[in-house]
This record gives sequence, structure tokens and C-alpha cells, in this order.
Amino acid sequence: MDVLIHDPTLRDGNHAIRHQLTFEQIRDYCCAMDGIGLDCVEVGHGNGLGASSLQLGIAPTSDEQMLTAARHSLKRTKLGVHVIPGFASLRDIAVALDCGVDRVRVATNCSEADTANRYIVECKRSGSVSVHGVLMMSHMLEPLKLAQQARLMEGYGADAIILMDSAGYFVAADVRERISAVRDLVSVPVGFHGHNNLGLAVSNSLTAIAAGASIIDATTRGFGAGAGNCALEMLIAVLFRSNINSGVAMTNLLKAIEFVPGIIRPVAPPEIGTTVASGLYGVFSGFESPVKRAAAEFNVSSVDIFQILGQRRVLAGQEDAILNVAHELASRTNRQGTY
Amino acid sequence: MDVLIHDPTLRDGNHAIRHQLTFEQIRDYCCAMDGIGLDCVEVGHGNGLGASSLQLGIAPTSDEQMLTAARHSLKRTKLGVHVIPGFASLRDIAVALDCGVDRVRVATNCSEADTANRYIVECKRSGSVSVHGVLMMSHMLEPLKLAQQARLMEGYGADAIILMDSAGYFVAADVRERISAVRDLVSVPVGFHGHNNLGLAVSNSLTAIAAGASIIDATTRGFGAGAGNCALEMLIAVLFRSNINSGVAMTNLLKAIEFVPGIIRPVAPPEIGTTVASGLYGVFSGFESPVKRAAAEFNVSSVDIFQILGQRRVLAGQEDAILNVAHELASRTNRQGTY
Repeated sequence: MDVLIHDPTLRDGNHAIRHQLTFEQIRDYCCAMDGIGLDCVEVGHGNGLGASSLQLGIAPTSDEQMLTAARHSLKRTKLGVHVIPGFASLRDIAVALDCGVDRVRVATNCSEADTANRYIVECKRSGSVSVHGVLMMSHMLEPLKLAQQARLMEGYGADAIILMDSAGYFVAADVRERISAVRDLVSVPVGFHGHNNLGLAVSNSLTAIAAGASIIDATTRGFGAGAGNCALEMLIAVLFRSNINSGVAMTNLLKAIEFVPGIIRPVAPPEIGTTVASGLYGVFSGFESPVKRAAAEFNVSSVDIFQILGQRRVLAGQEDAILNVAHELASRTNRQGTY
Repeated sequence: MDVLIHDPTLRDGNHAIRHQLTFEQIRDYCCAMDGIGLDCVEVGHGNGLGASSLQLGIAPTSDEQMLTAARHSLKRTKLGVHVIPGFASLRDIAVALDCGVDRVRVATNCSEADTANRYIVECKRSGSVSVHGVLMMSHMLEPLKLAQQARLMEGYGADAIILMDSAGYFVAADVRERISAVRDLVSVPVGFHGHNNLGLAVSNSLTAIAAGASIIDATTRGFGAGAGNCALEMLIAVLFRSNINSGVAMTNLLKAIEFVPGIIRPVAPPEIGTTVASGLYGVFSGFESPVKRAAAEFNVSSVDIFQILGQRRVLAGQEDAILNVAHELASRTNRQGTY
């Protein structure tokens, strides 16, 4: 196998529908995808274990219910979960392990690998799961510093390191530099998780593979936060055409996706004008909805909001900054008497 | 300028809504886009001048009305039309010239450049327009033969040659080889028109530029046939990040697109399972809707239909083949007693 495919459709896609995936949708998707050759299907709230909350969005299904539904349907494909220290507690992980997950991904913002330490150690102690260390918003550190954070995670015991382009910010050279830098400093496999804000999710995944990545994240129909992820069916088709073996049975995959429940897609086409702005200025894709609401409320351009959020290097969890920025822009407009 | 941007949103996008763009939508889009730095905005029925018909789809607005609406709104940006010999007559071109178009694109299937001869000569004789020779479905000829067809069009008087990846079939190497081959054989500028069936429209456009293309087609929100075109707002953002000068004012463009009429997008998200299959097997993107209908009618997989259409090298205009293939697949299924 040249590359393993990790499918977070049922986790990252939850961002696109305010975390409303149901038990039945999870069960049916896992049934359709089991045994097609995907390495792992990842399931849960968009922000991972323990993240269902008023601020981030209440899921209709508990972590335990979601994982139970998936576990029953996934017989030949691994089951994974996403864990962000702070949102998830160690107790949440214990519940997931009881549900029989095969993989735990411990994810931090790219400069905060140290907050993953205890989580990775605890998962490895269980002995039963593989653990991926995930660096989110990986465009916010230069390659060498990013590689040093990856090295920390490897030191805690991570079996692989995943770089997430959470804002869909990367062009090819960015991917090449960062994957190479991490490969130079760690000895475990390296993976890439792309978003499509600039329309480059598929080609960036190819660039990552060429630079040495051996795990690629991709979701059905690109279902995911903001402009969406690397679309699984496109990636598999392009890998096929490029003679890169992913172990996924392509025609079976295309037919499965053809009949996958209609919910596995954004309710509305993404506002590409907005999602492009998020990629261009390096702001988390999941900010799209609140930015649109703020732009409408204050009658300002969401492009301008994204530009300022990018300048201020705002991260997920700092959503309150959006309203402040919209308010500032509206005040400026009023002072100038024009917009 | 490193590259000129040609915007066929109001022509290729017409495919996505069965050619139903209205006078008002054309007027408003052209108003929003005028003077932002696009080289040309192309307007018309999806299949170009004279193509409004029962078989291809009846447009609610005549060629003359569409071009008049656009001409009044485009003061600093060129106005272009698409012409397919056979659908368009020389009389249709005369009407367009009377409406004040600046550019005529004469398009043929990639192996039929000779059918463009009289059309290109007539347009050049008018003296008032630039003429692009367009080779559609350009994946269906090997690079050298494609270049020879391009050379023919240059000989007829074309001021530029455009390669269309009508099926969204190309991966990077395909683009590189073909653009290079054409560049080697013709002396006029070469352009690229990508479709996004495999998620590579933006990256293929970059590859085309690196291989020497100096005209790139892109549409707002990727509005176009099948899986859509190279998305204009994504392309411009990526060109900006790549220090490639297109002359387009990026922030102005993003803001214009943010407020562009909502019609300028697919009514529903594309059925990516289907559009990927079209790219994978090299079948014209515009076949998506009839293939879906046939698949539903005969209860067979659209993936299988596309695969067989690709094997038979079916071209636009041969839509009747779709029902035949669906019927064959259904018969096979019945004989086997299973599907």
C-alpha cells in the first residue's frame, strides 16, 4: 500500500450541519463503507469527543451512541475518534475505548503539542489503540517549528503525525515544505488533512504523498467544515489515474457514495466567496457561518471580517472576536459615511 | 500581465441551469464584474450562438437580447461569444458582431479543427474581433495530434488556441504534456479551460500556466457544466498567493462575487459520485443530468453508464447513446438475476 485513507466524513462533516448527524445516518454510512478498503472511519461531534455543548453545538446523539452505531457496522474497517484536550476529558476517552474504537487522534493547535502529552500517554497505556498526534491550523507555524511540535507528539508515543490544513490555506509549496520538514524530524508515518477553501484539497493531498505522507484524510463529497475537505471519491479516482495504491476498491467506492444517504453533503452549496476568503487569510473554515451572520447583522463584508481575523491570527474557540471585528468595521463605515 | 482571465460564467454556467439565465441576471453579473480586471466575459447559451433548441434546451432569452444586456454593462471588459460550427451559422455570428462583441471563440471537438475554417476566416474578415480557436474534449487526442489540430486553427487565422478539458479528465501530467505540445507547434498564445470533475480544475490551471499557457478560463463559484469549471475566486486567490499577475483586483473580485446574484451557482450541489465518474472515464460533464435520469429509469448505476460511454468514446451530441447503454446494463442485470 502506498497510502492509507482515513475518512472523517462522520466527524468533520458534522461541522457542516451543526453536529446534527443521527444514529441512523452513522449506521448507514458505516455499513456502506465497511470493507471497501478505507483504513479508518472517524466518527463524532465536529470538535470530537466531549464537545457537544451550547457554545459549539449540541449533538442529538451522545458520543457513546454514535460510536456504538459505528462499531456495529464497521467489521473490516477501523473506527476512529477525534480528541481535542480541553473539550474531551480522559473520562470521555475511557468511554470511547469501552465502545471499541481502534484509533484515537489527539489534536491540538499546531503550537500546543504539549497539551496532548497526558492524552497520548493514557491512550497508549490502554494498549488497544493506535494513536495519531494531530497538529491543527498547521499553516500558523513555519516548517521547522511545526516539525519540532510533531517531534514532541512522537515523544509522547504517537504512532503517526497528521498535519491539518484547517483553514484550507496551503498552496503546493506550503504542503511540500511542511511535510518534508516533519518527515525529516520524526520516524513515524506522517499524514495530511486538507480543506478545499482554495480548491486545492485534492492536489495538495497528492503533493503531500509526493513529499512522503502515507496517510491521507478525505471525506465523501468533501463533507466537512467550511469549504469542505478533500473529496474522497475525487482523491481515489486521481490516485487510480496516478498509479498510487490506496487499497480502496474504486468502483465499489463510487457506487457506495452514489447511494450514500443524501444527508452526507452540505445542506446548501458553500458560500465560496466566503470560504475562499478564509483560506486566503488563514482563518479556520468553521468560522464561515458565524462570519456570515455577523456580516449580515452589521451590514459589512465577510471578506473584510476574514481579512482582519487572519491578521489577528484568531483560532477556533475565539469566535467572540468575530462580532467585535464586524462591529469595528461597521463603526469605521459610519465614520466614513460610506462603505 | 502573466496571464489573462477569460470568464465564461454566463455561458458555461448556463449548462448548470438548462440554459435559463435571464436578461436581468446577465445584466447584473456584467455590471458587478466590469472593470475588475477580467480580460473578457463570455455570454450565451451553454452550447453557444444559435444553440437554443428543443434537443439542447430552449433559452428564455435570444442571443441578441443576451449580448445586448451584456454589452450595455461591460464598458471596460471585453464581451465574448462561443460558437460551435453546426449549432451556430455564419448568420448567428453576424448578429453577434452587430451587438458589438469583442471576441469570438470558434470551438470544435478536438479532432475536427477543419470544421472551424470558414468560421474563423469570416470572423477575421470582419476586422473588429479577436478570434480564439477552441479544441473541446482535448483529452481524446494524444499531445502531438492535438497540437496539429491547433496548428490548423492558427493557420485559419486564430489569434489564440484554447484547450478545453471538457470532461474534467486531466491530471497534472496530461495538462503539462498537451499545453507544451501545442506551445511547441503554434506561435499564438495558448489557453486552458478546466473542469472540476476530479477536483483538479484550479491546480490544473496552475500547471497550464507553468507549461506556458497565458489565458485561463474560470467561472464564478465554478458555475458550469457537470462538476463545474475552475472557480474564479479560488483561482484568483491562488494566483495572488503564487505571485502570478492576472490583473484582477482580488479583494474587489471577492466582494463582487459575495454579492453576485444567487442564481450564479448550481441549483443543487453536483452529484460528485457521478461527476467524478465522468472525469474518470473521460465523458463530457454535461452528460450528468441525462445519465442520472437514465440510471434512475433503468435502475442501474450511473457509474457503470459513464464507464461504458467512456469506452465507446461518446461525444456531446450523441446523448441518445445514454439510454442505449442504460438499457443494455439493465438487460444484463436481468439475465444475471442480480446486480
